[in-house]
Amino acid sequence: MNRITILTENDLRAIIKLDLSSIDCVERAFAALATEAVAMPPILRLDIPEFRGEVDVKTAYVPGFEGFAIKVSPGFFDNPKLGLPSLNGLMILFSAKTGLVQAVLLDNGYLTDIRTAAAGAVAARHLSREDASIATIFGAGMQARLQLEALMLVRPIKSARIWARNHDRAQKLADDFAREHGIEATALPDPRDAIRGAEIIVTTTPSEQPILLADWLESGQHLTAMGSDAEHKNEIDPGVFVRATYVADRLTQTRILGELHHAITAGRVMPDQQFAELGAIIAGKAQGRVSRDQITFADLTGTGVQDTAIANLAVIRARDAKSGQIIENSVKMGDAA
Amino acid sequence: MNRITILTENDLRAIIKLDLSSIDCVERAFAALATEAVAMPPILRLDIPEFRGEVDVKTAYVPGFEGFAIKVSPGFFDNPKLGLPSLNGLMILFSAKTGLVQAVLLDNGYLTDIRTAAAGAVAARHLSREDASIATIFGAGMQARLQLEALMLVRPIKSARIWARNHDRAQKLADDFAREHGIEATALPDPRDAIRGAEIIVTTTPSEQPILLADWLESGQHLTAMGSDAEHKNEIDPGVFVRATYVADRLTQTRILGELHHAITAGRVMPDQQFAELGAIIAGKAQGRVSRDQITFADLTGTGVQDTAIANLAVIRARDAKSGQIIENSVKMGDAA
Repeated sequence: MNRITILTENDLRAIIKLDLSSIDCVERAFAALATEAVAMPPILRLDIPEFRGEVDVKTAYVPGFEGFAIKVSPGFFDNPKLGLPSLNGLMILFSAKTGLVQAVLLDNGYLTDIRTAAAGAVAARHLSREDASIATIFGAGMQARLQLEALMLVRPIKSARIWARNHDRAQKLADDFAREHGIEATALPDPRDAIRGAEIIVTTTPSEQPILLADWLESGQHLTAMGSDAEHKNEIDPGVFVRATYVADRLTQTRILGELHHAITAGRVMPDQQFAELGAIIAGKAQGRVSRDQITFADLTGTGVQDTAIANLAVIRARDAKSGQIIENSVKMGDAA
Repeated sequence: MNRITILTENDLRAIIKLDLSSIDCVERAFAALATEAVAMPPILRLDIPEFRGEVDVKTAYVPGFEGFAIKVSPGFFDNPKLGLPSLNGLMILFSAKTGLVQAVLLDNGYLTDIRTAAAGAVAARHLSREDASIATIFGAGMQARLQLEALMLVRPIKSARIWARNHDRAQKLADDFAREHGIEATALPDPRDAIRGAEIIVTTTPSEQPILLADWLESGQHLTAMGSDAEHKNEIDPGVFVRATYVADRLTQTRILGELHHAITAGRVMPDQQFAELGAIIAGKAQGRVSRDQITFADLTGTGVQDTAIANLAVIRARDAKSGQIIENSVKMGDAA
């Protein structure tokens, strides 16, 4: 018998939070990307234009983690008309040793939210000034909120500025954040004003054209772009590549999906130009911030290693908390051909 | 709330059999491949050499089917040392309209066995002589047995011959089959003898070099090669391409994984040479068998449309039979970025 744990979104929300252990777990996975024989195939993509649906499948095997995750992320953009969220999906954790299913994580994208925010914290930890206390977030959605919370876990953030296309939503996020976290938080109507004097800037929008211009940046700032997870998304002016030290989560992926993709298209960067990856910096194999005045820029498109990391953490926690439902599935020796 | 059905292998064995409805369902999916806007991305492949593991992920959206399946097929070849089967895995069925998870099918590869056998029946139905009564199977494993059962559902099979590298296993399959199905079944030690006079030949082995030579074939025979689902597998002498009318399950896939791949490598076929696909023949858009003497050859590498077809059938059956366990998962409207 193979015992399979089924975890609902509510089960997962109870055991996985955006906290230092989630951040450390994702950091460990990034480090493995630079030091271990990680296997991370290209994303499988299925399009269902009839229903404005698109489905991404990501996976990665990370040595040192007991299981490997396969994550399926459907986005169906007519869902809100039906009263349903556009994004949902699940992860499945398989034993890396036997391939047997260990757990089905019906997270509706919750674990992705957490591992994405955790990656922002990892980037800030390794690239921003250690004493950074002023953070600016572009966007006012779930990931904007989580990125700010993530920064507070790794840097002494005292003041937050929010800019979003919809100023009312930016204002609401700033108010909520000030109330919930007891820091100064302001919504600014002008993105340029929002960046002035900030030490960390995180962009979390689905923008398809640059919303942050190169000459707005000031020395010493760290910028993380989270929004670009598809070919057509683009938040950052390609001119930033000339001013900042660029770091990719996965170079083979940011060349296709990330801000790097647009800088290559714009002719600002050569297609084969080499840059450091975040994991190499964590592992001490590449340099991140070397001076106080340096501008650093992390381009995070989301990787399968993050999914494998957070799924393993969830299953360890579920085991300890005895949460979820157990399904007993037969495992018989078949006869070979 | 989203209600998700969890079906174990035992649940699935009770509701899905190799029968005419499975065959018709798979046939309908192949026809859709030729007539509808099917989306079937290339296979995602993850290798874990440390544990001799390989994982394939297949998917297809087939208009007319309520859901699309994502199938994960791990093969871990050190498992038998641990007392576990090498192959296992699961399918997940998602609503094609909303992307919400509908069902988790913990089939350990059972549904793949059935849809693979069903494809063999579909090929025989459209390519073999209608009155074919003598069938030869190469291989003595699970798929050998199922292919023979599948043929019996679509052709008046009266006599079966089995050849396998391990003659004792071939003998056992022949004995079992004669007893269970009441037809004449013989194990033959020489593959050439096994082919002489047969009207349908199905190869189901994991061979990496040809076990069926071109000049063994006789006029009027139909050959289905099932074994080659990976680059290195090769059951059929490339010379067969000169003698037989070739039909692919999916040409873009058989050029890479199938017998066609080896014929291209051997220089017997041009890389861009066009052939009919099985779906086009079913849909009446291409010709299959046009004469009694023609030799036909179906190269079946396994497609995501078959998985989507059988997973939909399983979920419809499970609903009717009220089988499986229901997990209630929350679905909340999130806030957009």
